[in-house]
Amino acid sequence: MRNCQEPFAAKRPLGERALIQRIRSRVGGKPFAGLTLGIGDDCALLGPRPGEQIAVTTDLSIAGRHFRLEWHPPEVVGHRTLARGLSDLAAMGARPLAAFLSLGLPRELTVPKGRQKVWVDRFFDGFGALARTYKTPLAGGDLAESPIVAADIVLVGAVPHGRALLRSGARAGDLLYVTGRLGGAAAGLTGLRKLAIRSENRPRPPTLSSKMRDLLAAHLNPQPRIAQGLWLQRRGLASAAIDLSDGISTDLAHLCEESEVAAEIDASVLPVHPNATLKQALHGGEDYELLFTASPKARIPSVIAGVTVSRIGRMTRRRADLPDVTIRTERGVEMLEPKGWEHFQ
Amino acid sequence: MRNCQEPFAAKRPLGERALIQRIRSRVGGKPFAGLTLGIGDDCALLGPRPGEQIAVTTDLSIAGRHFRLEWHPPEVVGHRTLARGLSDLAAMGARPLAAFLSLGLPRELTVPKGRQKVWVDRFFDGFGALARTYKTPLAGGDLAESPIVAADIVLVGAVPHGRALLRSGARAGDLLYVTGRLGGAAAGLTGLRKLAIRSENRPRPPTLSSKMRDLLAAHLNPQPRIAQGLWLQRRGLASAAIDLSDGISTDLAHLCEESEVAAEIDASVLPVHPNATLKQALHGGEDYELLFTASPKARIPSVIAGVTVSRIGRMTRRRADLPDVTIRTERGVEMLEPKGWEHFQ
Repeated sequence: MRNCQEPFAAKRPLGERALIQRIRSRVGGKPFAGLTLGIGDDCALLGPRPGEQIAVTTDLSIAGRHFRLEWHPPEVVGHRTLARGLSDLAAMGARPLAAFLSLGLPRELTVPKGRQKVWVDRFFDGFGALARTYKTPLAGGDLAESPIVAADIVLVGAVPHGRALLRSGARAGDLLYVTGRLGGAAAGLTGLRKLAIRSENRPRPPTLSSKMRDLLAAHLNPQPRIAQGLWLQRRGLASAAIDLSDGISTDLAHLCEESEVAAEIDASVLPVHPNATLKQALHGGEDYELLFTASPKARIPSVIAGVTVSRIGRMTRRRADLPDVTIRTERGVEMLEPKGWEHFQ
Repeated sequence: MRNCQEPFAAKRPLGERALIQRIRSRVGGKPFAGLTLGIGDDCALLGPRPGEQIAVTTDLSIAGRHFRLEWHPPEVVGHRTLARGLSDLAAMGARPLAAFLSLGLPRELTVPKGRQKVWVDRFFDGFGALARTYKTPLAGGDLAESPIVAADIVLVGAVPHGRALLRSGARAGDLLYVTGRLGGAAAGLTGLRKLAIRSENRPRPPTLSSKMRDLLAAHLNPQPRIAQGLWLQRRGLASAAIDLSDGISTDLAHLCEESEVAAEIDASVLPVHPNATLKQALHGGEDYELLFTASPKARIPSVIAGVTVSRIGRMTRRRADLPDVTIRTERGVEMLEPKGWEHFQ
C-alpha cells in the first residue's frame, strides 16, 4: 500500500491517534477469515480453524542492541522486526494468523524533517511489505513514547493439534538438515558496519545502492522460512526443528538439550554463504534458516519451496565424555562451543 | 511460589539462560488444559476450546513514562505490567489463557547488591502473585539487555465465538455503568509522588508501610476486572465495554466513536474514590475499572463478583452541535473534553 496521507504542514510530532491511523493505512489490512477483529478494540479477536492449536511468540528488538539507527535504514528495522517473529512460527510449522507490535519511539522519530519521510512511516513501509508477502495482518499492538526505539513483535499462528514441529522430538540416529545458507547475515552485518564507519560523520543511516542491498541482503532482508516449515509440518517429515536466530552452535545446543540427544555436524558439507567465513556460519546469528531433524527413512528433498536443503550431520546419543554438539573437520571431531548471542553475559 | 534459588555468591549479572530458569521457577507454572507448551520452544502452544475465539492484547510499559524506578517498588512494576494486559481481556469478557512478557533490562538490575534482592526477581514476585490470582501462566516471552526498562505484556484469552464484549455495540438509549470507584489510581500516584519527593536523596524506591500501601492501593495494585467481564459476557447483558486505562473522559470517547453514539455522564452519581477529586475521577487513568453499556431492559445488579457497579449515565444519539461526551452537573450539561493520557502529544 502506498502512503496516501497528506504531506505534513507543520513540523510537529504525530499524535498517538493520528499515528495509529497512519499505521492502519500502511499495514492494517482487511479483516480475513482468521482475524475477526483487528486494531481498534481492547483486544483483537482471532478465529483458528477447528482442531487447530495457537502458536504464540514474542521478540524484543532494542536500538543499539539488535539494530542501530545510524546503520540500519528504517525499512530494514521494520522488516527485520517482523522477520524475527515470523521465523519462530516457521520453526513450529505454523501458518501466520496475525502480528501485533508494541513500539516505543523517541518523539523525534515521529516528526517530519524537511522533505524526508518520517522514520516511523519508513519503518512501517518495511514492516508492511513483509507482512503482505506472508499475508500477516497487523492486528494490534501498543505505542509509547520512549527515550530509545524498542519494538516487541508478537506473532500468532495456527497449527493442527499435535502437529507442531518441536525442539524436543529429535532422536539418536536422526539426520540433521538446514535450509538455505549459513553466515550470510553475519557477513552482511560486517559489511554494513564497514560502510557505516566510512560514513560516520553523517547523522543518518547510509543510503544503500541496489548492488549493496543485494550483497547485504541476508542481513538486511532475511526471509522467514514459513513455506518450508509448513511443508515439513504438513508431511510430518521432521522430528524436531528450531530457527537459526542466535547461530547454529547455540541453537543446535538448544535443540539437543530439549531433545536430550547429541549432534555431530560435518563441516565439509555445511552450506556456508559465499560471503561468509566458517566461523560466521557456525556462530553468526540472524540467518533465520530452519534447522531440523528427520528419521533416516524420511525422504527430504534437496529443495523445499524454492530453498535448498542440506544434510549437515546426524543426531547421536549423549555421551558423558563429550559435549552435546561436536563438529567433524579434517582434524577430526571437535567440540563446538555455543558462541552465539546471549544477553546479559 | 517462594524463591528457592541459591543465594548469590558473586556480584555478577545473571546470564540469559540462568535468568530464564529463575523466571520459570517463579511464574512458569505447570502446563494446564489450555496451555500445551510453555517456555522453552520457538513458540508456546495454546489450545482453545471448540467454538472459542482467541483474544490478544499487548501493552508496552516504559520506565520514566509508565512507572519510575525511583518511585515504584519492583513488585509494583511487575504487578501493574500484568494488570494492564489482564484488564484488556476483562474488557472483552475473555478468560485468560496465558501471558507472554518481553522484558528489556539494564544489566545492573540483574546484579545482586549486597543482601538486597535482585530487581528482576522482585519484579517477577509481583508479576507472579497476580498471575497466580488470575490463573494465568507465563508461557513465553523474550529478554534483552536494554539501557532502560521496557516491559511489553501480551495476554492471550479465549471467548466463545461471537460473545466478546466490543467497544462498538452501544446504542442510543442504553444505560452507562462502571465498576468500582474512579480516580483512586490518580490520587494514589499523587500520594506516591509526594512520598518520593520527600525522600528524594535516596537512590531506591521508598519503602512503603502497610498503611501507605492500603492508601495507595488503587495505584500500586489495581485489580483487573476479569470476573466482572466474564460475568457480563456469560449473561450477554452488556452491549459494549472498555476498560478505564486512560481515564473515563478519553475511554468513553473511544467507546462512543466505535459505537457511533454520544454519552451523557451524570456527575452526581459518579463513584468518585474517597481519596480522589472529581477531576481525577474524570481524567485520571489506570483505574482499570470496566465501563460498559446495557439496554435499559437489562437487569444489572449493584454488585458483580464482589465489586460495586454504578449507573453513571446514558447513551444518546450523536448531535452535530454537541461533542460525543457530555457531563451533567449542577451547572447544566457541559462538554467533557478527553484529557486522559495520549502519547506523542
